[in-house]
Amino acid sequence: MGVGDRRVGIGLIGAGGIGRLHAQHLTSRVPGARLVAVADVDGKAAASCAEEHQVPSVYEDVRDLLADRAVDAVVICSPPDTHARIIEEAAARGKHVFCEKPIDCDLGKIDRALAAVARAGVKLQVGFNRRFDENFRYVREAVASGRVGEPRMLHIVSRDPRLPAPSQTQATVGLFLDMTIHDFDMARYLLASEVAEVYALAQSTAGRADPDTALITMRFASGAMGTIDNGQTVYGYDQRVEVFGSEGSVRVDNEQPHRASVVDRSGTHGALPLHFFVERYAPSYIAELIAFTDCILRDTEPPVTGHDGRMAAVLALAAQRSLEEKRPVAPKELSDD
Amino acid sequence: MGVGDRRVGIGLIGAGGIGRLHAQHLTSRVPGARLVAVADVDGKAAASCAEEHQVPSVYEDVRDLLADRAVDAVVICSPPDTHARIIEEAAARGKHVFCEKPIDCDLGKIDRALAAVARAGVKLQVGFNRRFDENFRYVREAVASGRVGEPRMLHIVSRDPRLPAPSQTQATVGLFLDMTIHDFDMARYLLASEVAEVYALAQSTAGRADPDTALITMRFASGAMGTIDNGQTVYGYDQRVEVFGSEGSVRVDNEQPHRASVVDRSGTHGALPLHFFVERYAPSYIAELIAFTDCILRDTEPPVTGHDGRMAAVLALAAQRSLEEKRPVAPKELSDD
Amino acid sequence: MGVGDRRVGIGLIGAGGIGRLHAQHLTSRVPGARLVAVADVDGKAAASCAEEHQVPSVYEDVRDLLADRAVDAVVICSPPDTHARIIEEAAARGKHVFCEKPIDCDLGKIDRALAAVARAGVKLQVGFNRRFDENFRYVREAVASGRVGEPRMLHIVSRDPRLPAPSQTQATVGLFLDMTIHDFDMARYLLASEVAEVYALAQSTAGRADPDTALITMRFASGAMGTIDNGQTVYGYDQRVEVFGSEGSVRVDNEQPHRASVVDRSGTHGALPLHFFVERYAPSYIAELIAFTDCILRDTEPPVTGHDGRMAAVLALAAQRSLEEKRPVAPKELSDD
Amino acid sequence: MGVGDRRVGIGLIGAGGIGRLHAQHLTSRVPGARLVAVADVDGKAAASCAEEHQVPSVYEDVRDLLADRAVDAVVICSPPDTHARIIEEAAARGKHVFCEKPIDCDLGKIDRALAAVARAGVKLQVGFNRRFDENFRYVREAVASGRVGEPRMLHIVSRDPRLPAPSQTQATVGLFLDMTIHDFDMARYLLASEVAEVYALAQSTAGRADPDTALITMRFASGAMGTIDNGQTVYGYDQRVEVFGSEGSVRVDNEQPHRASVVDRSGTHGALPLHFFVERYAPSYIAELIAFTDCILRDTEPPVTGHDGRMAAVLALAAQRSLEEKRPVAPKELSDD
Repeated sequence: MGVGDRRVGIGLIGAGGIGRLHAQHLTSRVPGARLVAVADVDGKAAASCAEEHQVPSVYEDVRDLLADRAVDAVVICSPPDTHARIIEEAAARGKHVFCEKPIDCDLGKIDRALAAVARAGVKLQVGFNRRFDENFRYVREAVASGRVGEPRMLHIVSRDPRLPAPSQTQATVGLFLDMTIHDFDMARYLLASEVAEVYALAQSTAGRADPDTALITMRFASGAMGTIDNGQTVYGYDQRVEVFGSEGSVRVDNEQPHRASVVDRSGTHGALPLHFFVERYAPSYIAELIAFTDCILRDTEPPVTGHDGRMAAVLALAAQRSLEEKRPVAPKELSDD
Repeated sequence: MGVGDRRVGIGLIGAGGIGRLHAQHLTSRVPGARLVAVADVDGKAAASCAEEHQVPSVYEDVRDLLADRAVDAVVICSPPDTHARIIEEAAARGKHVFCEKPIDCDLGKIDRALAAVARAGVKLQVGFNRRFDENFRYVREAVASGRVGEPRMLHIVSRDPRLPAPSQTQATVGLFLDMTIHDFDMARYLLASEVAEVYALAQSTAGRADPDTALITMRFASGAMGTIDNGQTVYGYDQRVEVFGSEGSVRVDNEQPHRASVVDRSGTHGALPLHFFVERYAPSYIAELIAFTDCILRDTEPPVTGHDGRMAAVLALAAQRSLEEKRPVAPKELSDD
Repeated sequence: MGVGDRRVGIGLIGAGGIGRLHAQHLTSRVPGARLVAVADVDGKAAASCAEEHQVPSVYEDVRDLLADRAVDAVVICSPPDTHARIIEEAAARGKHVFCEKPIDCDLGKIDRALAAVARAGVKLQVGFNRRFDENFRYVREAVASGRVGEPRMLHIVSRDPRLPAPSQTQATVGLFLDMTIHDFDMARYLLASEVAEVYALAQSTAGRADPDTALITMRFASGAMGTIDNGQTVYGYDQRVEVFGSEGSVRVDNEQPHRASVVDRSGTHGALPLHFFVERYAPSYIAELIAFTDCILRDTEPPVTGHDGRMAAVLALAAQRSLEEKRPVAPKELSDD
Repeated sequence: MGVGDRRVGIGLIGAGGIGRLHAQHLTSRVPGARLVAVADVDGKAAASCAEEHQVPSVYEDVRDLLADRAVDAVVICSPPDTHARIIEEAAARGKHVFCEKPIDCDLGKIDRALAAVARAGVKLQVGFNRRFDENFRYVREAVASGRVGEPRMLHIVSRDPRLPAPSQTQATVGLFLDMTIHDFDMARYLLASEVAEVYALAQSTAGRADPDTALITMRFASGAMGTIDNGQTVYGYDQRVEVFGSEGSVRVDNEQPHRASVVDRSGTHGALPLHFFVERYAPSYIAELIAFTDCILRDTEPPVTGHDGRMAAVLALAAQRSLEEKRPVAPKELSDD
């Protein structure tokens, strides 16, 4: 049950892969939510999603969903270039907003969306689900509590088990705004410091125009330094971090489907990492939605704000510029936060 | 959804701790089940469980539940000394049965219950949930496929994070029939061989009459040898196995809540094991109920049979006798299977 | 250098495999020792060993070596059935003695040897080298310091990478007196408690008359329980222990030649354990000889005494009797210590 | 013994910390070497080193050692600013040379030294001992054999347990030429590709003028990317690498003094990494000297050449320039190799 048995009426916008994952969690794992409506420009996708999860209202036009009085809040899973506009419209209707990353690829549009949210006084939470993973929370706490001392070095490894299909988001917005944006947010989250400079190297290993493998170097305002390593693996989802500090180091290794191992003539053999984000981050997808409904029901600040969404996008854009201009780029060149 | 959208109407008997855990899984995680009735001699417990999970029918008398035509199958979570009788009555009513372990502490009563099940042609599955754990399945498969060769040695470590309350099952039926019975089943499951001899040592470390720490040695019909180590830890649930064979060894280490570790001046520090059975075995509790509804819907043999329940009880009783008579005991002394 | 630059003149008796290993360590890694003589009934073996390590005196007859005034102490690596007699003769000559295990297979002969040592007031150290391994020292210290509380359970896994050749010691004295004797000593060393009862199961997997795979259950005087698992692996030397206590558990995993691992499509792959005793225990072989020369130079008690050698032999003989009589055997049945 | 029982007469130049370590290895662990002379401008240091290891000849002036006909080869452990000059003089005398890193901080002086070596036809091996570590050899082999496919990303973590004393080498030549130079060589060794660009960030955390913590980003000629992470730890020597490739990833974790761990109420606790280079790299220091004497005795190419020493220095100087000019620097800007 939600707080005081109240539940937030949720309208899901976008019934693709990530939308359906959220729909499943909203109906069975998020006590404070009631999935009351689904909208998708592809009416069939909306209808089948609604049927599977017994959602009462189905729309093709997002405006109709936003006009639905049962909808207290929206979960935006439509294509990235629609996010900012939908945020503005939802805010104007007084709906709270959970939005998948990125908010937008254009800082001007992000700023207009955030301004609309501020004006309307609604909640906006951005889908940086990894902040809710038990592993990264542990690291954040080890850093924040001073257990590893003053942070000096951060390493993030974040590799996918396969390239996205050309039609998928990454192909549209590029590696940095689709994939690395999670890691930029993780960097800010773990060290609680802004990034003062980024330097990006990248390579295309799959014969596409866009890079699929990248190494981003960061200098933080705090003086700490860090790296993000993005790539495509043959062995599953590789999601590790390390923070090295003046009093010690904290590391996260990959989660695995089991803890069994075999030793035979040829060596010791263990499991692969969990395969991809659905396997690895299911609990954090659930936790971020619980946090979202909680912040509405309790009227508190969302744990991941619009500002967080904006700053991660700024870093992604700075990395893009660094790659193009072959030089370190200060995020301040793009935005004066 | 279940097979062909059919669902098995489930009547839950016993609304205590494990009963409520099953109720939660039956209503949200087992697509082929519909929880239609709850019975408990404590009417209030039955009612609150029913309310929480929106179960239509509530009974104090198990016979009323067995008479409910919406009930296709029962899940028996009442005290152990009621299991055998309820199985008989359920079978007589044509209800399929999922029964928590042990079936009974008396072989005669177990045999009457199994005979009733056979006569009625209903399914009977015993709650050895650990067979459904990914780790132990992996070990079973490594053994069954010949990957580690001919099994020669088995070690099972199975330690609880605390003693059961004196009122709980273990206090009633003793360590071997409550706790070790899981390990005896695991031994038979992993090696696919019967146990030809057991030798038990035990100690009471907590000032109770009954032992809480035990070491059981097994000789298998196949020639393999094995141990079961039961105890009470300060560090969480310790659930490990190793099978050593002619071509290698397969081991299961404990599952942990996260894979983060810290290295500081004093050493390298990692997580505790998952705390207890709810944390460790939630997925296997769900999987055993899915398997149970599947075997009803598809009319197949249950993956854990009444015979399995009986054999594990025979081994527990043999261990009991070994402890009393301070000598190795052959299960055949108790039962001629 | 030894204590005050003094060195102990060592006479090596037996120039076979383990003798040559000791010779190498005595000449290059044990500052307090000077290898001054080698004896072997096989004169060629003695001569080649002496030449390799530039040892001044070579003998075929051990009595000649014992008469050599440069010899302060002997290191006995001859066949087991000669140990007790040589100890007696060496003691009679006032030579200190380091003796490979077992002292003998006959308790009467062991007792006569120990009596001779006591009479002569010389040092006797038995070659339980594993006590000097860093891993097992750590476990001993974790137990002795109370870090894991009161010990309740001990598990020793001690598996060889291959069967000894039929001509080797094990074939002569049997598994328990050749191989398990190390584990019996380890049990006494780690728990600092005597064993009150042993129960042995064993199997011959290689078509020989003697067993090569065994499981020994122990009940300690302290109330703790324990197991020893002996076998033959395809994956190298398997040397692990675990002590479980009221405040925690301490485990030793295998040492490996490197800490590299590969993750590829098929899983995560690491190194085998170190191959056998030469690789695994080289540092402890060196450390036991340093300890031996130290106890002579400083006139202190040897860290592994004749009594330790005797008690481990008693346990091996008790295990032998248990196996024959298919019942638990108290070591007191064999010897009243 | 060396090849055909011949041994190389070694003259040690510099009897400080690393010199004495080499002296110890040369006299007890390198069969093909005979330590025949020691020179140090500090005559007392030379004398005490010679006495400890029973070295026949002692000199204060390196020229006298170079004139000693018993000296076939020199091991140069004097301060870095003397290396190049001594190499030239040794080569002119026809002596083979093993030289600690760096050859020099000035490329012109390095080139003159290499030219002198080439002219004289003597061997020159540079002290990149880590190439001989079993772990890194394993990684190199996994890469070279194609086991992890085409390398895409390299990460080197190389952190010391303490800052060098201000009087030590690092204070003289700076972090990059003293410490990172090992990592630059490791990068070239593991990927078998030259570095096309370096970008360096660094921080001084200890109140000194020179940085002690650094992050270097590398772009390789092959297209691969990599990082080097240098810092000062509280938990011992942190020496790890990872190579990620198109077919998998290979990682090296730290070596530890034992494999024991404790689990108690507060978590799972394991050992620290080996403390520093003496503990971690003793076997590789021995192996590099064995390789050096072998290449002399067999007249083969040294496994680490003067060119390797030069290229690592070029990368260190490029990193230095990158740090000063706050931009990526191509090594080609410094040297046209």
